[in-house]
This record gives sequence, structure tokens and C-alpha cells, in this order.
Amino acid sequence: MKIAVLGGDGFCGWPASLHLSDLGHDVLIVDNLSRRRIDEELGASSLTPIVTPEERLSAWQEVGGRQIRFAEIDVAQDYDALLDLLVTERPDAVVHFAEQRAAPYSMKSPAHKRYTVDNNTNATHNVLCALVESGLDAHLVHLGTMGVYGYGTAGMKIPEGYLDVEVTTDQGERIGQQILYPTNPGSIYHMTKCLDQQLFAYYAKNDRLRITDLHQGIIWGTHTDQTLRDERLINRFDYDGDYGTVLNRFLMQAAVGYPLTVHGTGGQTRAFIHIRDMVRCVQIALDNPPGRGDRVKIFNQMTETHRVRDLAEMVARISDASVELVPNPRHEAAENELHVSNDTFLDLGLEPTLLEEGLLLEVEDVARRYADRADLDKIPCTSVWTVEQQPGVPTSRVPTPPSGPGPSPTSSPAEAAAPQSA
Amino acid sequence: MKIAVLGGDGFCGWPASLHLSDLGHDVLIVDNLSRRRIDEELGASSLTPIVTPEERLSAWQEVGGRQIRFAEIDVAQDYDALLDLLVTERPDAVVHFAEQRAAPYSMKSPAHKRYTVDNNTNATHNVLCALVESGLDAHLVHLGTMGVYGYGTAGMKIPEGYLDVEVTTDQGERIGQQILYPTNPGSIYHMTKCLDQQLFAYYAKNDRLRITDLHQGIIWGTHTDQTLRDERLINRFDYDGDYGTVLNRFLMQAAVGYPLTVHGTGGQTRAFIHIRDMVRCVQIALDNPPGRGDRVKIFNQMTETHRVRDLAEMVARISDASVELVPNPRHEAAENELHVSNDTFLDLGLEPTLLEEGLLLEVEDVARRYADRADLDKIPCTSVWTVEQQPGVPTSRVPTPPSGPGPSPTSSPAEAAAPQSA
Ligand SMILES: NC(=O)c1ccc[n+]([C@@H]2O[C@H](COP(=O)([O-])OP(=O)(O)OC[C@H]3O[C@@H](n4cnc5c(N)ncnc54)[C@H](O)[C@@H]3O)[C@@H](O)[C@H]2O)c1
Ligand SMILES: NC(=O)c1ccc[n+]([C@@H]2O[C@H](COP(=O)([O-])OP(=O)(O)OC[C@H]3O[C@@H](n4cnc5c(N)ncnc54)[C@H](O)[C@@H]3O)[C@@H](O)[C@H]2O)c1
Repeated sequence: MKIAVLGGDGFCGWPASLHLSDLGHDVLIVDNLSRRRIDEELGASSLTPIVTPEERLSAWQEVGGRQIRFAEIDVAQDYDALLDLLVTERPDAVVHFAEQRAAPYSMKSPAHKRYTVDNNTNATHNVLCALVESGLDAHLVHLGTMGVYGYGTAGMKIPEGYLDVEVTTDQGERIGQQILYPTNPGSIYHMTKCLDQQLFAYYAKNDRLRITDLHQGIIWGTHTDQTLRDERLINRFDYDGDYGTVLNRFLMQAAVGYPLTVHGTGGQTRAFIHIRDMVRCVQIALDNPPGRGDRVKIFNQMTETHRVRDLAEMVARISDASVELVPNPRHEAAENELHVSNDTFLDLGLEPTLLEEGLLLEVEDVARRYADRADLDKIPCTSVWTVEQQPGVPTSRVPTPPSGPGPSPTSSPAEAAAPQSA
Repeated sequence: MKIAVLGGDGFCGWPASLHLSDLGHDVLIVDNLSRRRIDEELGASSLTPIVTPEERLSAWQEVGGRQIRFAEIDVAQDYDALLDLLVTERPDAVVHFAEQRAAPYSMKSPAHKRYTVDNNTNATHNVLCALVESGLDAHLVHLGTMGVYGYGTAGMKIPEGYLDVEVTTDQGERIGQQILYPTNPGSIYHMTKCLDQQLFAYYAKNDRLRITDLHQGIIWGTHTDQTLRDERLINRFDYDGDYGTVLNRFLMQAAVGYPLTVHGTGGQTRAFIHIRDMVRCVQIALDNPPGRGDRVKIFNQMTETHRVRDLAEMVARISDASVELVPNPRHEAAENELHVSNDTFLDLGLEPTLLEEGLLLEVEDVARRYADRADLDKIPCTSVWTVEQQPGVPTSRVPTPPSGPGPSPTSSPAEAAAPQSA
């Protein structure tokens, strides 16, 4: 297959591109390198030393023996270039990673909120619009997040995208229906993924585009079989307060002998998946496209769930670190349950890499190995979710956070757990 | 109250501004005049002769004895000016009409789709973001559409924004919940209103903004008490294939002795409201804001429903015209039922102006009076909804339109009628 990977220079997109290339697909990366510029803005950088896109690609040519091409296009801003690429290259599939993906970054300031909404909505809409205009019947695979499902849980397992509900007609008759799972996003970033879902539903219905949306948990792990083959192929490892996901920050803190900082009680349950499994899932999704005219296929792309404090303890145990509780910058329930259905990928043959097995390797091979490159000042999260949480605001103004587990008749149908992905 | 009316130069915004000013409120219009530029782009213009914003406002000062101020700001593009205005003026309420509002226009070309998504999403998000940044506790009243509810009906009355559903837990327990009515938009324009809803839900929850979303039916009628006072205050009347709503196009055709063109079988049922009732509804909504921390208040702003062919017959009867069926450019069910709950406004004292009473006046006072200004070539709708509907595409490629009335287990919960508003 010919596959265009939008956002192919990023943390997920790069190893996915290598994996697909290694399988023999013709891979074309599209990226505007905004993530590298955000590193500069934040004065942060990947713990692992990542090289330029050009060096990465020539290293892969050398080591992997295959060509991956690269086009520097802003998918949200430069529609004509995107359309031109689709029309000229005629890919069989498009994998769409090209969004601003950090929840804390999306909450940093009004400008960051607006950038995230503008970039993500226009990126996704441009891809959809260009697919229709090009007349291609390419399969679009999008990376969404488990975070669309929202907070808390009503004792319900989160289904894969669609929820069975019953409604009562005016005649008192009960009718069963399947609806897009009502969303309850916990940040501006997560909200953009809810907007994406609506765009996908519309284009699948009106234009019969074939779309798969992967509701992904938090990625952990750094290396895949391909990125390990040469240090120039290494993947990025973010540990800063904006882009570093919870596990990476723990690993980093452990590696440098700092206490692991847990937000609030650490009672938030999150869904996780190893980066090797992510690349396999993208491949499986590509191999199983929906038919033309079908509704959007939604898979939950996660393999295990953990409470944040259990995670901290797991990392502390293997690395002899301590755990420290700090105030939670997010506006969310202190504790939540999380049960997620992920049958589709398991049925299609995914064999999960479990945290218990792989964590030690991460501490040793990544966090400790590159610890001297770390800037420890960057680890804390400095974004806050509401005006009231800003430093200096008296606590009496702090609003009550959303209620914990259990159904709430005035909010979402089954207020399901919000595994913020970043 | 001090009220900022975003989009206050438009068809709804102008009479609403006059009405609110007449009631004694301090009104400040914000508009980028994009609608007037779209007139130029389409080579169309209002049937009624509308004057410049400056002339309108000085006429109102003269005739109404009150000042309305005007700021030319692109709400979607110029965030800083919007923020500055909120911070300086500190309005008690913001009424948000500032979006691209025509479904056919939103489907004209890829560029029109992209403009509509970009303009509407960023306009709404900028308003929300600026309200938070300004620290104002202003009440935001937004004009949404009945079109968010979608096609068809499952024998259910459409509730006001929120749907009661039952879900079953893993333990087999049934739990009642109230969810945001699952959307099923019929065009890119309608889809942007679904995105708006998600933005509102998020900001009401995270930032405790006070927001009312009015799910409005198709406006009919041209004059209000205020616009009638001087010809320089006259409201716009669109009759072209993009912006002319179904009733206006019939009125125009009747006025010039043309057959009334009905799309498809004319079996689509739509919801309507007179422009005098619209301005009253906005006032009622302003008088009844939600509390801080409340979920978004949603009112259905419509007073009656009609099948398009019945409407055509009604107009034909009073004006001695004939009715002609033409192919439907939209991708929608041929026939649908529509039952809509509008109790909130009726309970709050709205006394509807009915079509049966007001139609004749429209034919005589508006359509016939200004008929010599009409460009009849502009009446047909030239946008089509899908690639397959483009002229020259063999009908075998035309996809089956969405199914008609009756529940459909794979789509929306209660596939409710889509009264496209424009
Ligand atoms: N990392 C996780 O734990 C995680 C979890 C759930 C979902 N996801 C989703 O997976 C996708 C990829 O995440 P990631 O961790 O690789 O993020 P990343 O920031 O490392 O990669 C995103 C890439 O997209 C590019 N990009 C952004 N906007 C673009 C635009 N307008 N035009 C062209 N390129 C653009 C960036 O330069 C970057 O290379 C995102 O959509 C994210 O929401 C990630
Ligand atoms: N007219 C109807 O039948 C109807 C029905 C349902 C809902 N609505 C909704 O009511 C609202 C007003 O509709 P209308 O019929 O008055 O439309 P309109 O096009 O006549 O008015 C919209 C006004 O907003 C302005 N505008 C658009 N984008 C802007 C931006 N980025 N910055 C500043 N100003 C901007 C335009 O210049 C115009 O004056 C819309 O949101 C529409 O969706 C209208």
C-alpha cells in the first residue's frame, strides 16, 4: 500500500512510519515540524537525542534499506499543498497523527487554547475535505483519544465508540438505539478530539469516506524494533510538564533520584498502551478498513488501566524512588474507575506488551541512559485548568471539581472515565 | 443591560439589536460585514434596499432616539480586538449571531466548506476564550439551529437540547441519564453548530460560563416594529439559492409570477418562527440566564412546523401561483415527521405570530413591493451535497439517501427531524 502519514515526525508517527515501511509499504511522511518548534518555545527537548527529519530518513534508507519520503506541509494551513499531494500521490491510506496533542499545553494560555482548536479542527477538516475533492477512496485512520469518553464511570464498561441506549417514544414505546458515545472532555485538547469525531461522522455519512478512529490510551515506552536499529532512528521521549505523559515523568524523576510527583490523590485511573502495540494497532486498522458508506469504525486502542498512584508505586519499586503528592492542576474528579472494552484489537491478534514486563527496560535503557540530558526544571506541569486555580487566587473561589464515580443525571450518559492521554 | 450583539448587521442580528435598543438596553454591534461581501461574491443582493451600517445607525438615532454603537471586528480572526472590546466595554451579555449561516453556501465548494468550518468554529471559540480571559461573567446567548437534531424521527418529540436515555450497566442495572441530544447534521453549516455545542458544553463545565443556546427554526418575515419605522431601517430579505430560505424563495417566485420550485417531493418537514418572535425570544433568553456552574440552557426557538409542499401550497393559494417539483440538491430523506417541544418560550410568555396570519403581508409588503429589484436567475440553488450529485454524474453513482422516518439502530438515537434552517 501507499500510505501518507500525517504528523509522521512525531512521537507516534515516526515509529509508525518505520514499522509500516519495514512491512513493505510505500510511506510518505507529511509534517510541518511544529512539534520541534514547540520544543523551542518551551525551552524543552526530547530526552533522547533526535536528529533532523532528513538525517532520520537517510539513516532508515541505510539501515532499513527502504525509502520514506518527506513533505513539509502544514495540514491545517496549506490546503492546496495537501490536496496536491493526495492528487499526485494517490495514497491508498492516510494515517492522521497531525494534531497538537498535549492537554497541559492546550491549557497554558488563551493563545494555546486557540492554537489547539484552530490547528486540530482545521487539520482534520482539511484532510476530510481534500479526500472528497481528490475523489480518492483512501482509508483514513485517525488517532483519537480515550479522553473523549469523559470522567468517572457509572459501573459501565466503555464500549468501542458507540453506546447502546434506550429512548422512550411519545407513545411510551421503548426503542433501542446505538449512538456515538456522548463525550465529556477534560481539556481543550481532548475537546478537539470530540470535534474531530463529529467531522468524521458527518463525512462518513454525507461523502461515504472510509474512516477509522482509534481511541488511544496513553502511550508508554520509547523504542520499537525499528527505532532500535540505529541511534539516528531513536524516537523522542518527552518528560516536560506539557508533553511528558504521566509515566514518562515518573521514569525521569526515578532516573535522576527525585521523588515521583503524583497529582492530587493519584486516584485517577488511566488507560495505557505500549508504543510497539500502537504501531501494530495502526497496521491492524489499516488491514481492516470499513466499507464505503459504513459508519466510522472506532477501536479502543489501549491494553491496560492503572491508577496513577499504583503506577508511581510500580516505578518507585523498581527504581528505589519515593512518591510525593502535589496539588492537581486539572479540573477533574479525584478518583475514578475505568473499564474499557478493547475486544476488537485483541480479536484481530494483538498481543499486549504489559507494563510489568517492560517498565524496567525503560528506566534503564532510556531514562537512566540519557539522564544527563534532562532539564529537571521542566518536569512540573505549570498549566492550570481554570482561572480560579491560578497562583494567588483564594481557595474560596475554587469551584467544586466534577463529581466522582457514579451516574449523574445532569451530565453525561454514563460519565465514563477520562483517561487523559497527555 | 449593556449588550454586545455579534453579527448585528445580519438578517437576525439587526432587528434583534433594534428591539433590544428600543427596550432601553445599551447595544453595541460587532460585525465584520462578511455577509455584505458574500452578496458581492454571489452577485446577489437583498431584495429590500439595505443601507450601510453607518446610515442604519444614524437613522435609528434619529427615529428611535437611541444610540447603537458599531465596531467592525472579525470575531473569528481578530481575537485581540474582541478581547479588548469585552475588557473595555464590560457587557452584561453577548448575543452571538456571527457565523456563516447558509447550508447551500457551505456546500458550494471545498473552499466554502473550509471557510464555514474555520469561521464558525473560531468565531465561537474566540468568544468563549475571550470571555474567560476577560474575567467577565457575561451571559452568552448563541443562535444555534434545529438542524443539529438531524433527520427523520422515531416517533419522538424533539426535546429542548437534552435527551433522556437509559443505559445498562455491566451488572445489568438500568440507569436513566440525560445527554446532549445526539446530533445528525445535514450539511457542513449544520455540522458547525454541532461543534459549537461541544464548545459550549466544555466551557460551561470547565470555566462555568453562563451560556444559552437557541436552537432556532427557519426565520420567516422581514419586518419588526422597529425596522418598519423608517425605510433606512429595513431588514435584509434574501431570496437567492444560497441564502434565501425556502419560504422567501417561494414568496419571491410568487411575487414575480413564477412557479414555486419544491425540492424533491416537498415532504421535508421544517420548523419556523417569525422574525418578530425571534427578537422576543432573544430578549426572553437574556432575561432568563442560567446560573454560574449550570449546564448550557437550550431552548427550541420555533413556533410551528410545516411540510415544504404544504408551505408552497399555502403561498400559491394566496398569490395565485403554481407549484413545480425539482430534484433535491440535498442529501436527505424525502419525507420526515417533526414534533418539537418548545415549552420553555411558551411558558415564558411568547405569543407566536402564525404563518397563516402573516404570510399575505409578506407577499404584498415585501415580495411584490420590491419585485422589480429581483434577479430571478439567483433563485435556484446550485450547490449540491455530494460529488455524485454534480451535473454529468450518471445516476447509478448516486448514493442512497439517508433512510426516512423510523428508528435506525445504527445511526442516531432518535433520528429526529432535520429542519434545515437555511
Ligand atoms: N502520545 C500519546 O500518549 C497519545 C495518546 C493518545 C492519542 N494520541 C494522539 O496521537 C497523535 C500523535 O501524537 P504524538 O504523541 O505522536 O504527538 P506529537 O506531537 O509527537 O506528534 C504530532 C506530529 O504532528 C505534527 N503536526 C501537528 N500539527 C500539524 C499540522 N497542522 N500540519 C502538519 N503536521 C502537524 C507535529 O509536528 C508532530 O510531528 C495525536 O493526534 C495525539 O492526539 C497520542
Ligand atoms: N436566518 C435563519 O433562518 C436562521 C435559522 C436558524 C439559525 N440562524 C442562526 O442565526 C444567526 C444569524 O443568522 P442570520 O440569518 O442573521 O445570518 P446573516 O448572515 O444575515 O448574519 C450573520 C452576521 O454575522 C456576521 N459575521 C459572520 N461571521 C463573522 C465574523 N467572523 N466576525 C464578525 N461578524 C461575522 C455577518 O457579516 C452577518 O452580518 C446565525 O448563527 C444562524 O446560523 C438563522
